[in-house]
Amino acid sequence: MTNRIRIAVLGASGYTGADLVRLALGHPRMEITALSANAKAGQTMADIWPHFFPHPRLPTLVRAEEIPWDGIDAVFGCLPHAASAGILSGVRGPRIIDLSADFRLRDASVYAEWYGNAHPAPTLLDEAVYGLTEFARGALRDARLVSCPGCYPTAALLALLPLVEAGVVGTERITIHALSGVSGAGRGLKDTHLFAELAEATHAYAVGRHRHMPEIEQELSRRVHRPVRISFTPHLVPMNRGELETITVELMKGVTATDLRTVLQRRYADEPFVHLLPVGVAPSTRMVRGSNHCVLNVFEDRVPGRAIVIVAIDNLVKGSSGQAIQNMNRMFGWAETLGLEAAPLFP
Amino acid sequence: MTNRIRIAVLGASGYTGADLVRLALGHPRMEITALSANAKAGQTMADIWPHFFPHPRLPTLVRAEEIPWDGIDAVFGCLPHAASAGILSGVRGPRIIDLSADFRLRDASVYAEWYGNAHPAPTLLDEAVYGLTEFARGALRDARLVSCPGCYPTAALLALLPLVEAGVVGTERITIHALSGVSGAGRGLKDTHLFAELAEATHAYAVGRHRHMPEIEQELSRRVHRPVRISFTPHLVPMNRGELETITVELMKGVTATDLRTVLQRRYADEPFVHLLPVGVAPSTRMVRGSNHCVLNVFEDRVPGRAIVIVAIDNLVKGSSGQAIQNMNRMFGWAETLGLEAAPLFP
Amino acid sequence: MTNRIRIAVLGASGYTGADLVRLALGHPRMEITALSANAKAGQTMADIWPHFFPHPRLPTLVRAEEIPWDGIDAVFGCLPHAASAGILSGVRGPRIIDLSADFRLRDASVYAEWYGNAHPAPTLLDEAVYGLTEFARGALRDARLVSCPGCYPTAALLALLPLVEAGVVGTERITIHALSGVSGAGRGLKDTHLFAELAEATHAYAVGRHRHMPEIEQELSRRVHRPVRISFTPHLVPMNRGELETITVELMKGVTATDLRTVLQRRYADEPFVHLLPVGVAPSTRMVRGSNHCVLNVFEDRVPGRAIVIVAIDNLVKGSSGQAIQNMNRMFGWAETLGLEAAPLFP
Amino acid sequence: MTNRIRIAVLGASGYTGADLVRLALGHPRMEITALSANAKAGQTMADIWPHFFPHPRLPTLVRAEEIPWDGIDAVFGCLPHAASAGILSGVRGPRIIDLSADFRLRDASVYAEWYGNAHPAPTLLDEAVYGLTEFARGALRDARLVSCPGCYPTAALLALLPLVEAGVVGTERITIHALSGVSGAGRGLKDTHLFAELAEATHAYAVGRHRHMPEIEQELSRRVHRPVRISFTPHLVPMNRGELETITVELMKGVTATDLRTVLQRRYADEPFVHLLPVGVAPSTRMVRGSNHCVLNVFEDRVPGRAIVIVAIDNLVKGSSGQAIQNMNRMFGWAETLGLEAAPLFP
Repeated sequence: MTNRIRIAVLGASGYTGADLVRLALGHPRMEITALSANAKAGQTMADIWPHFFPHPRLPTLVRAEEIPWDGIDAVFGCLPHAASAGILSGVRGPRIIDLSADFRLRDASVYAEWYGNAHPAPTLLDEAVYGLTEFARGALRDARLVSCPGCYPTAALLALLPLVEAGVVGTERITIHALSGVSGAGRGLKDTHLFAELAEATHAYAVGRHRHMPEIEQELSRRVHRPVRISFTPHLVPMNRGELETITVELMKGVTATDLRTVLQRRYADEPFVHLLPVGVAPSTRMVRGSNHCVLNVFEDRVPGRAIVIVAIDNLVKGSSGQAIQNMNRMFGWAETLGLEAAPLFP
Repeated sequence: MTNRIRIAVLGASGYTGADLVRLALGHPRMEITALSANAKAGQTMADIWPHFFPHPRLPTLVRAEEIPWDGIDAVFGCLPHAASAGILSGVRGPRIIDLSADFRLRDASVYAEWYGNAHPAPTLLDEAVYGLTEFARGALRDARLVSCPGCYPTAALLALLPLVEAGVVGTERITIHALSGVSGAGRGLKDTHLFAELAEATHAYAVGRHRHMPEIEQELSRRVHRPVRISFTPHLVPMNRGELETITVELMKGVTATDLRTVLQRRYADEPFVHLLPVGVAPSTRMVRGSNHCVLNVFEDRVPGRAIVIVAIDNLVKGSSGQAIQNMNRMFGWAETLGLEAAPLFP
Repeated sequence: MTNRIRIAVLGASGYTGADLVRLALGHPRMEITALSANAKAGQTMADIWPHFFPHPRLPTLVRAEEIPWDGIDAVFGCLPHAASAGILSGVRGPRIIDLSADFRLRDASVYAEWYGNAHPAPTLLDEAVYGLTEFARGALRDARLVSCPGCYPTAALLALLPLVEAGVVGTERITIHALSGVSGAGRGLKDTHLFAELAEATHAYAVGRHRHMPEIEQELSRRVHRPVRISFTPHLVPMNRGELETITVELMKGVTATDLRTVLQRRYADEPFVHLLPVGVAPSTRMVRGSNHCVLNVFEDRVPGRAIVIVAIDNLVKGSSGQAIQNMNRMFGWAETLGLEAAPLFP
Repeated sequence: MTNRIRIAVLGASGYTGADLVRLALGHPRMEITALSANAKAGQTMADIWPHFFPHPRLPTLVRAEEIPWDGIDAVFGCLPHAASAGILSGVRGPRIIDLSADFRLRDASVYAEWYGNAHPAPTLLDEAVYGLTEFARGALRDARLVSCPGCYPTAALLALLPLVEAGVVGTERITIHALSGVSGAGRGLKDTHLFAELAEATHAYAVGRHRHMPEIEQELSRRVHRPVRISFTPHLVPMNRGELETITVELMKGVTATDLRTVLQRRYADEPFVHLLPVGVAPSTRMVRGSNHCVLNVFEDRVPGRAIVIVAIDNLVKGSSGQAIQNMNRMFGWAETLGLEAAPLFP
């Protein structure tokens, strides 16, 4: 165990926290030292997560304030927004990888507008590195505080950033239609998340007001140096994991769907986790289930001058805990794929 | 039984045929006289459809050519395209309600382009009434041959036709993102339709080339008297029934999302099966499961000058067999809701 | 509306209550006059049940005590146990059909043992008719208070009662293995009932202590005039509706599985809702989804001297609201199938 | 790569073969050298298994007879029965781990009775080691030919063997009720395995005649030195992976359910993959999804003198490919957990 870093997970009683623990158990350089879940303090992980019964050596859950930070090398924040920044702003010592929404938006007033509360730690916003790994490598190495993107922005930006940076698509009419498995909605008790309400059905939610929207806009705007507004409509699909985004873009004059493929092919040729599929193959969430991979492809649209980009990830892995570990690997100078090599689980 | 008409169903071994039989069993004016399924001739419905075991009095399946047409008042065609027109073009006597794709497109050359075969009965195309009931009532009454719309076009056109006719939305950049339950893919044996391939996953298919696209375009073009091209991307979702379309439209100058609601409210206020939901309520397929209802709503898009229209139907009922019966009700002068009053099945 | 009876539903905000309303909407002799749901009083059914949006004329939800009983012909109790008897014991006027557990057990002390509270209205126990329709017809006609069986007992008793009454099976080692869709667990907020906890998984629950156990035992014991103890293990399966029981029985000396089929065939030959399947066909919940039907069959066991009886119902219909209406039909002298003729919904 | 053995997988186009490849990709001592699938020869794994797109370096599929055996250290047979023994009987050189049914039954005449064909290689039956790893360790080390148990027998025997060996339960009336995810039915094209036929439904199959029955009986009989006949009823549940068996056993005189727990606790205390759950916790397939773990527990039955043992595995991992690798680890003298350490995937 001597070559392992000691990690803490704040909020281990949510799906994101649990999936981080799952991945950490298989990571050769991580030692799970502390797990917090305030409402469940004193219980074991197996008590609240039956799939951890075969892993009885996990630390007992404690309250966040009970964690002795000086023994921890890295802390993963898997808490709800506001709570996360509230606690993490007091953490000294460990490097911080936050999976909440608190450090994603660079402008505290935009945060307040979308999240409904004043930002708990606005002075940290400048320091936070936006951890979309493939686009943040330089900054990650020495970062103290990394903010992992939301699941929807991860998929959207992996598809769009190379195209926007290459100047091959417009940014005026980007339309993102997103599908998510139900784990993305969290483990909170709402009757809308009961099995019988969701099975055998699908619906859109938060239409025109989902909080991942300003995050996607922020990152696109940074690249084009002007404000971008996108259309984004998320839907819940009766499955546990997986996220699929079907994105309609307007092509710059003279550009074809094939050109978009070329841009993505070049950009991701050497990426271990992002894969352009062969011509005509539609991305499916089953191609990436349980893995840190992302698959994407480009299709001609029937409307002239447009193209359709489709991208799939596992919302809990590349969209959350897997990317957090990918960032950690980078921060600590290890191979980025360490602990994330597992092939997708299908069927 | 004297006040019942005698009906035949061609292709009773597919999901559409079976759902038509289900609805016909509960219809007070229909008597199921003949059922065909060439590959299953000689078997009972319960042999191939176990949910009909409680209904043992259904006629045994025969080959289509064995049906004596002179004893039949109405025939429902639930065959694959090409096969349908091939057989129905020889039918004399009964009124015809076709659920295949053969009589949806008015132009035989467009049909040939999209379906890959010459039209088997082009001389019938002029006669066929496009049976989107809410928009075809005048023509249905005396029609001999009614062609029921595809499931995707049904939903799309119920959402779009009133808006296009009212001139409140543009037709240049209509983007339809569609989700369908797996029953829409039919009962044919493909490994892509096995349970283990589809459960816990979602993906787009036929991107940029789905055959329902020209059908939607045809009906929109007829209203605006110029060619319309749409973007349409269907996805399979792991559920049996249900279809949800999220449609992005461009608003004409000065028009708001609220104006769209007003148009739809007026158009559908007296419709028994089409319902505009209260402000902010997102349509879900669970609201219409197993029923002939359609629910829809309008949302502001974050991109200025656009709106999002969402519409849900049951693909096998309003999207197929239910609408066929709704058309039959109209053709025979009965209340349009006859036999279709069942409330949705939830959960 | 003049030939309709006026009904009230207590507890319309649960799955059972909602399914009763769904069926009542299609029943030609029922007029829904009052709906109660104390925690949701003032809301419409569509507010809490989105599938009722297409049925806007349902009465607004009120508190149970606001219902004026003298205008009501029949009241359906869909409340949790204890609450149900508490309210119904004060009802004068309407005939009562209770779907809770309160009047199922004839012995108040057994009730107290299994439900953990003293019986709220023990003096009514003698009056209550146990409404397993096929076995209670004589008593139903004049009953003032009918107690509908639990979903598991309904399936178990339909399979076992004819066999026990015919003396062809023993009662010492009856082993019932039961599978249920998640709607059977109700709409209460428990994290164990969230979609992501139940999808893609199955597990047993309440092993050795499910409350439907004494109910099955009571009804079997009444037939054999001695105490019967059964083994009963329920499991949750990731589906909304449906209940399947696989029952292992010991054959009396000289009796064969075929003899059991003969007994069931004779008993149910004329029953509209209970169907013995052809030899070798395994009952599936998809054969009865959304309907009041029950399908069952008998198989030889490999262990000599035993047989396997399998039975399937829809837990919310024949297992709950459908049977309640079947009982009402009987109580009011109508055809037992009235309003319950709908064919199963498949797929 | 020098410390890796070279392996071949016969039948890589089935679910078992694919899951073996998935696990092999993460195993530090396995190098996938050859993959066969006769009907798909010439295609890549990603062509037929889209979840392997992120793993482009897998060998192209070939016909089984094209594999050069002298370069292979171990071959995994994932072919259908009969085909498997036919090919493997000609293999010289590599050690053989067969996942088909061909070498499970020790008696060729029993094989012929249940599988309907003469055994293709009866002379190999004596040599084959029945690879239920936890009970075969001594024989595995030097085995040339290992036959992996069926998925149902794996779960059943892990639950029953310690109890039978300890003499605490009878063998006359063992009743096994089994639930399986649909992947267990294979990737063959049958309409009964289409999504729409299986979703939202459950049913028993092969009642009284499932081929895993004689296998369970054989292994139990060997322990008690007399013929054992069991009752075994498998059911399909609408999920991809997972197997749950609920087993009713008769207790020997004076024995309690707690005694059974003690036996299992002792037997499995040091096992890495088999876990007795805490008192009262019901095993769920979600506790082991995607992993090689097995969880089990014992419950008192309400019928005196009996107990209920419940056991869960992932049918494709511990029930098939995972156990095959566990056996390989043992055969090659490595840690048994090598490459199998992944925690279950939940949700």
